[in-house]
Parts: sequence; structure tokens; C-alpha cells
Amino acid sequence: MTMYPIVPGHEITGIITKVGKKVENFKVGDRAGIGCLAASCLECDFCKSSQENYCDQLQFTYNGIFWDGSITYGGYSKMIVADYRYVVHVPESLPMDAAAPLLCAGVTVFTPLKNHNLIESPKKNIGVVGLGGLGHVAVKFGKAFGHHVTVISTSPSKEKEARDRLGADDFIVSSNPKQMEMGKRTLDFILDTVSADHSLGPILELLKVNGTLVIVGASSKPLELPSFPLIFGKRTVKGGIIGGMKETQEMMDLCGKHNITCDIEVVKPDDINEALGRLARNDVKYRFVIDIGGNSSSL
Amino acid sequence: MTMYPIVPGHEITGIITKVGKKVENFKVGDRAGIGCLAASCLECDFCKSSQENYCDQLQFTYNGIFWDGSITYGGYSKMIVADYRYVVHVPESLPMDAAAPLLCAGVTVFTPLKNHNLIESPKKNIGVVGLGGLGHVAVKFGKAFGHHVTVISTSPSKEKEARDRLGADDFIVSSNPKQMEMGKRTLDFILDTVSADHSLGPILELLKVNGTLVIVGASSKPLELPSFPLIFGKRTVKGGIIGGMKETQEMMDLCGKHNITCDIEVVKPDDINEALGRLARNDVKYRFVIDIGGNSSSL
Repeated sequence: MTMYPIVPGHEITGIITKVGKKVENFKVGDRAGIGCLAASCLECDFCKSSQENYCDQLQFTYNGIFWDGSITYGGYSKMIVADYRYVVHVPESLPMDAAAPLLCAGVTVFTPLKNHNLIESPKKNIGVVGLGGLGHVAVKFGKAFGHHVTVISTSPSKEKEARDRLGADDFIVSSNPKQMEMGKRTLDFILDTVSADHSLGPILELLKVNGTLVIVGASSKPLELPSFPLIFGKRTVKGGIIGGMKETQEMMDLCGKHNITCDIEVVKPDDINEALGRLARNDVKYRFVIDIGGNSSSL
Repeated sequence: MTMYPIVPGHEITGIITKVGKKVENFKVGDRAGIGCLAASCLECDFCKSSQENYCDQLQFTYNGIFWDGSITYGGYSKMIVADYRYVVHVPESLPMDAAAPLLCAGVTVFTPLKNHNLIESPKKNIGVVGLGGLGHVAVKFGKAFGHHVTVISTSPSKEKEARDRLGADDFIVSSNPKQMEMGKRTLDFILDTVSADHSLGPILELLKVNGTLVIVGASSKPLELPSFPLIFGKRTVKGGIIGGMKETQEMMDLCGKHNITCDIEVVKPDDINEALGRLARNDVKYRFVIDIGGNSSSL
């Protein structure tokens, strides 16, 4: 349920201007980031194990209800007040604008890689379905962590970009039956970032026996899951939403180390409506970032 | 593709009447069982790790092609010749007729329990969807291994049987919204044995965060998989087909230890057509077994 008026924005970076008396891990002047989480119960098993993202009293950065009963408002704003437990440090090496989308898009694809031991692990064959805001960061993570990365996309036009600029090793056009046939049983792990309606059957076939498909795109219609490729391949389909705060900080630190940021287009606050129009037409590579403070060097 | 004439039957028990010269682990007079597998490549990683059931050159006990090029014929027969690698011992304590369906139905539900460390492990909340040939054995395994077992079924009429005779702890009628609501986030693991078309959404909601749903029923139509309960609950949907030979023997031994058999109705060979008619109407508790040798004490 949307509680109007709403202020969106949950991929937020900025400089800390004030800290509470009891806050110990942040100080004025720190580079900080806020993602999707504004509050959680702090007491359940998930909160205690830094999986706040699965707390059933979770409140989001906007359109949520904070501990004091107030409605939360997001990052389309000159300032934001957040509880220190839901804030991360942004490494000095990362530009603030291109680091911002890591706070949702980044951690959403990072966490499944971490949960499946794919961070700086032995080389695996990884697939990324969909090359958008989430998918392009997934390709960067996959390559930074030493894997063989195959992009699976409906758009043949994205191949050059995927290979040349993002470093993907392979590219499969999902509407090309020959390429899909060639790709069968080749991948260990696939991240499906597509939120549009689609069947999981052809994607599952790309997995080896025992392979895992993680769904992070939230399709509004139910996905089609044919049982045969699931059963005969002992395959797994798994879901996940963003990551916990500890995982978010770990991701930020690794991005600092590997120099991973999102590919962005910076817009001024006055241009938000135009940007949203382009977003609806899928016309962005790959995330718009709004420069509210007027400090972005990319503008 | 079905190669006629066909002889079905892949849940077979009998006494060994002859053994090959090089066979060491079986002798004439042994009680033996044959399941779904007739041959595999013996050389791939799956064969080498006793996961023959995922070998891509797997041949089934009937309608398969054996190493010598002959077509395989199943257990509706007075005798069967099998390679020793695909034969298991049947414990002395188990009746041959009621042990037979363990060779497919039994191992199909046993293997996922084993793969998820649910054999004689700490007590978990386990759900079994569908109370038929597979489901009723799953309930017996779940109880024998010390778990809290909930049956999820469309048929309220099965509740008494599930609780009183099979020992289920709980029963949820899946068409009853109140019962389904009460069951939300209560189960650690669910075995879905239903091969009819159904949505996985309501079943996923019964799982706790991080819970696993294993699909062993092969629906001919794609299943409906809504992304929200998958993503927001970090849940897993997994497939699997029967088990390897080592797992099949391990299951047989555990059935011997815990005295687990299938609930069967024994029929004479002359009554097969009638039995198949009743099977089509779902009128069997829970498996028909054909007594070809005329030795069953249940007849």
C-alpha cells in the first residue's frame, strides 16, 4: 500500500553532517550510504544474525513506518535521517554517484553470489539473465571474482556492450534456439535479474545437473516452472531480496577493493520527470542517479 | 518415445535364481530388488559418485536400450535379468510385496530427505503435499526419522487416515484458506508429491524463511511459481528424480531397521486391467502390487 505523499529513493549516498550521541562507528564528514532498510525489530533471529532483510517487522527507507510511528521518506531529498544500524561506509576510492546504486542493485546480486560461495572462489561458469541495472553489476562482480560469465539476453544488440565494456566471456540470445541448445548444461549458477514475465524452463536447461538459478527480479505474474528440467537435472530455483547490513558493507568494501561501480547517467533534480519517462522506455545505461547536492563530477 | 511392445514395471522384488560368474555381492536365493535403473555409462562423474540417476546415458528398466542394444522390459514378468550394479538387497525383515514400491516411490522421497540432512537429524517441521503412493511413504519416513510431519492435501477425507494410521502430526486442507493462513511460515521443508497441475505459491508460504520445497511429482504442465513468496522468504524450490543405487540400498536398509514398507493392495496378474482402471480413478491405498510368483501372503 502506497502512503501518499511519497518520497522515493533507496540508493542513497552522502556526507554525514550530524551524528547522534551514542553513535560510535560514524562521524561528521564520513562518506555514507543508505539502502532499502530503515528499521527492523532488532530482536528476531534474522536481526541478530544480520539478516535484517528477512525480519518480518522490516520497514523500508520510503513508504515504511519508522519506530516512532512516522512515515519514512527516501532519498529524493537534500538530507535524510537514518538509524546508524542501517547505514554503511562508502570506500574513499569509489565516486559517490556511481556507488549509490550498489546499495540496492549491487547488494541484490552480490548476496546470492556470497550465499553460494562465489566470492573469490574457484572459477565457475556463471550466467546472468538480463542486462539492466542489476544484470550489468552482476557481470562486473562475476568477472571481478574470477568467474566465466555468460550473459543471457533477449537483445542481440547488447552483445558488443556486454563483451567489450563489461567483460562478459559469452553471450546467448535467449530467442535463438541454436544458441540456447549449444548452451545446455554448461552453467553452474545463474542469476535471473529479469522482472518481466518469462518461463524458467529454457533457463534451467542451461544449468548443469545440480545447478542453481537465483531469481532476484520480481515478476508481477507467476513465473512458469516446468517440472522436467527441474527434476531430471536436480536443479534448484532460489529467491532472495537485497542483503543484510553486514553483507551490504562487505559488498561496499569489495567494490572499493575491485573498483566496481555501477554505470550511471547523472541527472539534475529538475530532470527527474524526463528521466522517469526514459526509464519506462528502458532507455538508460544502466541507472539514473539524481545529483541533489550538485557535487557530481559526471554532470 | 514408447517402443512397443512394452512391458512396464520398475518396482520389482524377487529371489535370485542365477548369478553371473563375476558377480560377487549376490548369490542364488538372495532377496533382491530392481528399481528404475537398468544401465548407465559407468564412467561419468555421476556414475562414479553413485548418482547414476543423473547420468546422461541412463537407461530405464523398461522402454530403455541396454548396453547390448536390446530393449529393456520391466517387472510385469516371471523373471528379469539385470546387471548387478542396478540390483539391491531386500532386508529379511521386510515382506517382498510391500517392499517392492520402495524401489521407486520410496527412494524418490527418501533421497531428498537424505540430501537435506533429514535422516536421523534434529527434529524439523516437515510437510508432505499429496497423500498417495509417494506421499504416504514420505509421512512414514518423516515420522521414523523423528520429525513433526504435516500432510497438506486437497481431500479433507484423508485426515483421519493420515493421523491415525500413518502417524502424521498435523493435517492442512489446502483449499481451506483459514488452515493455510494458520500454517504460514511454520515448515522447514516440504516434499511436494503431486503430479497434477498446481500453483507453488500457497505451498511456499507455508515454509519458514530459508525453507526448501522439493518437487518430486512430474506435472505435465508448467507449475506456477510466483516470485514474491520465493524472493521475500529466501526460499528454495528444488527438483529430484529417484536416487542413486547407493542411496537405494541405504533406504532399503533403513526400511529394514525401522520396519517401513508401503501400504499395498496385492492383485493377481489376471486382475491387472481392473487394477489399472481403479488406478486411473485414484482408487488405491496406496500402491497395487502384482503377485506374479503367487507367493504373496497378502493375497
